[in-house]
Amino acid sequence: MNKVITISREFGSGGRELGKRLAEILEIAYYDHEIIAAISERSGLAEEYVSGMAERRPVAYPITIGQTLTSAFTLQFEHGVKIYAEQSNIIKELALKSDCVIIGRCSDYILRNYSPLKIFVYADTNSRLRRCRERAPKSERLSDSQIKAQLLEVDKQRAKYHNFFTGEKWGQKENYTLCINTSNTTIKNIATPMAQLLKAMLPLAGGE
Amino acid sequence: MNKVITISREFGSGGRELGKRLAEILEIAYYDHEIIAAISERSGLAEEYVSGMAERRPVAYPITIGQTLTSAFTLQFEHGVKIYAEQSNIIKELALKSDCVIIGRCSDYILRNYSPLKIFVYADTNSRLRRCRERAPKSERLSDSQIKAQLLEVDKQRAKYHNFFTGEKWGQKENYTLCINTSNTTIKNIATPMAQLLKAMLPLAGGE
Repeated sequence: MNKVITISREFGSGGRELGKRLAEILEIAYYDHEIIAAISERSGLAEEYVSGMAERRPVAYPITIGQTLTSAFTLQFEHGVKIYAEQSNIIKELALKSDCVIIGRCSDYILRNYSPLKIFVYADTNSRLRRCRERAPKSERLSDSQIKAQLLEVDKQRAKYHNFFTGEKWGQKENYTLCINTSNTTIKNIATPMAQLLKAMLPLAGGE
Repeated sequence: MNKVITISREFGSGGRELGKRLAEILEIAYYDHEIIAAISERSGLAEEYVSGMAERRPVAYPITIGQTLTSAFTLQFEHGVKIYAEQSNIIKELALKSDCVIIGRCSDYILRNYSPLKIFVYADTNSRLRRCRERAPKSERLSDSQIKAQLLEVDKQRAKYHNFFTGEKWGQKENYTLCINTSNTTIKNIATPMAQLLKAMLPLAGGE
C-alpha cells in the first residue's frame, strides 16, 4: 500500500507550506489545487466555482420564499454533494497511484481505510495573523481585525464542511496521528526532522 | 533559559517511555518519580501517600455526616493543595537547574512562563490496552475489561486533577506544542527523529 500523508490545517498555520516541503523532502507527490482542477474537468463545473464549494458545507435546507431561490439552493446543495463525491473518487485514485501528500478536503477521512498518516497543523491566532500578513500581496490593505475575521471564518467553514461530510469533529486530536502547533515556529526549520519522524511512523501506520 | 520538555500522557500510551528515551537521546535530565520523593522529603508526608495524591484532584467538599469524617476530608484536601504547592516549587527549581524532560504533574502549566515544549502522548484504547498487558508483571491476572476500566479511571483522575489546578482542559491540543498518537507505533523507533524535531522547535519555543 502506498504511503499517504494527509494535512489538515487551520488557516494561516503554515500547513500548506509544511505539506509542500514534506513532499519535496520525501520525494513524493503533492496534491492540493490539482484536485480542484480534476473535479472541474470531470464535473464540467468551473474551477473557480468548485474551489469555492470544495471546503464549504453545502447549504442543506431549501428555503421556500420563492421558487427561483429554492431552486438555486437545491442546485447548490446538489453541486456540493456531487463535488464531494467526485473529490472522494479522485483522492482515492491519487492514493492508489503513488506515495503522496494531500492537503485538506477530508482526505484524512476519505482515505481512512488506507491507513494514512494524518497530520493536523494549528497555531495561536496571533501567529496565524502574522503569517497571513507576511504572505499577503503588498497591495492588500486589510487591518489585523479584518484578517482575524477572515481566518476565523475560513476555519469555521472548514470545520462545518468536515463535520458535515465525515461526522467527525474537525481538529479533534483523536482523529489524527500528529497534531503540531506552529506558533513561534519556522516551517522551514521543522520540515526535515518532521519528515524523518513521519518516515519512522509510516511503515507501521501504513500497515506494512 | 533552559530547554524544558514536558510530557503529558494518557495511561498506556507509552508517554513515559518516550520521555525517558528523549532525555537519553538529548542527554538532558529526566524527572518523574524523583519529584514525588522530593515532595515527600519536604512535606514530611510518606512517599506512597504523596504518590497517590499527586495526580488526583483533592476532594473539595468537606461533608458533614460526622466530625471525624469531615476532618479526614478536610485534611486530605489540605494535603492535596499542599502537595501541589510543593510540587510547583520543585518543578520550577528543576527547570531552572538544567535542560530537562518532566513527566506529568501539571508541569506544562506550572512552567507556562518558561516556554516549555509541551507534548501530549495519546493512543486508541486497544493500543493502550496492549501496552499495559505487555508491561504488566507475569503474576498479574487482570482481564482486558479490568485493564480497560483501570486505564480509563487513571485518565479520568489525571484530567480532573489537571482541570482543577490549571483551569485548562487536559489533552486539549491548543495547550500543547505537539500531540502524538502512538497507536500502532513503536516508541523506540520514533524517539530519535522526534528528538531531532524537538531540537528544531526548541530554540524558538524557548524564547532564544
